[in-house]
Amino acid sequence: MSELAFIDWLRARTPAAASVLLGPGDDAAIVAPTGGPLVVTTDMLLEGSCFVLAEAGAAAVGRKAMNVNLSDCAAMAARPLYALVAVGLPRSADRRLAEGLFAGLQAAAHAEGCAIIGGDTNTWAGPLTIAVTLIGQATGRGPVRRSGAQVGDHLLVTGPVGGSIQGHHLTFTPRVQVALALHAQADLHALIDISDGLAADVWHLCTESGVGAELVAERIPLTPAALASTDGRSPLEHGLRDGEDFELILAVSPTDAERLVRTQPLAGLTLTDIGTIVPTGLWLLTTAGRQPLAPHGYEHRFGTDSQRGAG
Amino acid sequence: MSELAFIDWLRARTPAAASVLLGPGDDAAIVAPTGGPLVVTTDMLLEGSCFVLAEAGAAAVGRKAMNVNLSDCAAMAARPLYALVAVGLPRSADRRLAEGLFAGLQAAAHAEGCAIIGGDTNTWAGPLTIAVTLIGQATGRGPVRRSGAQVGDHLLVTGPVGGSIQGHHLTFTPRVQVALALHAQADLHALIDISDGLAADVWHLCTESGVGAELVAERIPLTPAALASTDGRSPLEHGLRDGEDFELILAVSPTDAERLVRTQPLAGLTLTDIGTIVPTGLWLLTTAGRQPLAPHGYEHRFGTDSQRGAG
Repeated sequence: MSELAFIDWLRARTPAAASVLLGPGDDAAIVAPTGGPLVVTTDMLLEGSCFVLAEAGAAAVGRKAMNVNLSDCAAMAARPLYALVAVGLPRSADRRLAEGLFAGLQAAAHAEGCAIIGGDTNTWAGPLTIAVTLIGQATGRGPVRRSGAQVGDHLLVTGPVGGSIQGHHLTFTPRVQVALALHAQADLHALIDISDGLAADVWHLCTESGVGAELVAERIPLTPAALASTDGRSPLEHGLRDGEDFELILAVSPTDAERLVRTQPLAGLTLTDIGTIVPTGLWLLTTAGRQPLAPHGYEHRFGTDSQRGAG
Repeated sequence: MSELAFIDWLRARTPAAASVLLGPGDDAAIVAPTGGPLVVTTDMLLEGSCFVLAEAGAAAVGRKAMNVNLSDCAAMAARPLYALVAVGLPRSADRRLAEGLFAGLQAAAHAEGCAIIGGDTNTWAGPLTIAVTLIGQATGRGPVRRSGAQVGDHLLVTGPVGGSIQGHHLTFTPRVQVALALHAQADLHALIDISDGLAADVWHLCTESGVGAELVAERIPLTPAALASTDGRSPLEHGLRDGEDFELILAVSPTDAERLVRTQPLAGLTLTDIGTIVPTGLWLLTTAGRQPLAPHGYEHRFGTDSQRGAG
């Protein structure tokens, strides 16, 4: 299958969207979004580092590649509009790999009303690599950054954390609709999705906001996968460090936090108050008292072999 | 060097642009472009397939990764605004590779007034991979597609072709300013940049426009690299097939073609009339008469070993 035949295949599967003036097949797509500011994000998935192709299957890899970007869009409380997909296929790949990958990419995009408007298909001697770029649009309330958390705010999380590597990192639902619903119902001071790990991502939010945070250990909701872990690390440690949960962390006023937790406005999801914003530092409150919490989680490093975790 | 330290390095080097409300460092960048439709394109470069890192050097690879996208933006006659960069760095890479790469990416972007607003930095066991996405904006005359060529139009090319692999594929200037100048001075019916090769890209333009083309062999301007080739393929064959020239091909009315060639409005570049749009087919006119011209050039293929050329 050639790149051009594949572009034809893709074009035939690209639904018309009102603001897409030209989809795949020219030197660039043409779009004319109307309304508020745009959010733009890109995330690359790399075989052997972010997924094991033989275990996951092409469609699941495609879904993940799109969903990690949709999760970033959710973390701005924006509506996804357009996606572009660049792939490097192993030269030995057959048509089924490419079609499975794009079927997964498209299913994930369409589930959130997002159109794949362009791409670049290449072959090479290396492993599978996929880079997705996503363009979304802020609602009338504007995008929500990481940087607006205030001392006294409460931190809420949209679901349980930990043990994502057991499967959730491939099957998660990006919290796009959840973010839009929350944004409509409360004044979100700051928002982030959990990709690097709860502790690390709370710390990212704190760093951007110039504040600290105190997490209450016993309140942190843990997944069955984290609770069932038998690798010597505690379920809490998995919840704090594992990453790729793709739940949202939001900082809201104490009043909004109390109301959201009491009313639980999200169908099928439980909002949990896991801590508060403090002036400085990252802290964990346990029955033994307050202790410093190291902010590390998963982080890509280069020029070193100290890599850990899944990206 | 960690990803976060690298984001800091990048943020410090991201100039403020009026329509960029938020640059690198959050879940997504925020932009608020005002004006016409946006063009969006993505292109991925893969080590060993599109460049040889040890020969080219990191900065030249970074420049190429940005410039191939700027060339696609030029091929829409749009102004580049924003770029996003996703990279997969070999785990053994040192800080100099990453900094050289980004220095090249930034130099190329800034040369055309484009801001790098976001990215994703990863490490893995594979070779270097770089995916750039570029967002540009149409001028008041609108974007120029491949699809507007009309029978009787003349085809003009902005510079000589062939032998790009000798070095030009790393050092070319994307024809952004050239495209904007031409768009302001003439009614461009169709526009494409030469990435796959003159014959292939003329054919792409014809296919999208539902027409054919006749090229005049002796008029096709050839580079010194094509003229000096000693590999058994003729200079003309190099010019027609090699690809990665990154000159523009434009289809304009005979009147505009005559005027543009007579006045040569582009400083330092010579516009050459290489042929005409005909109802069907792709043809080469030589002293021996008119013969069919195969439309192939460089194309990525998968599920086969019939790959050739540089991508």
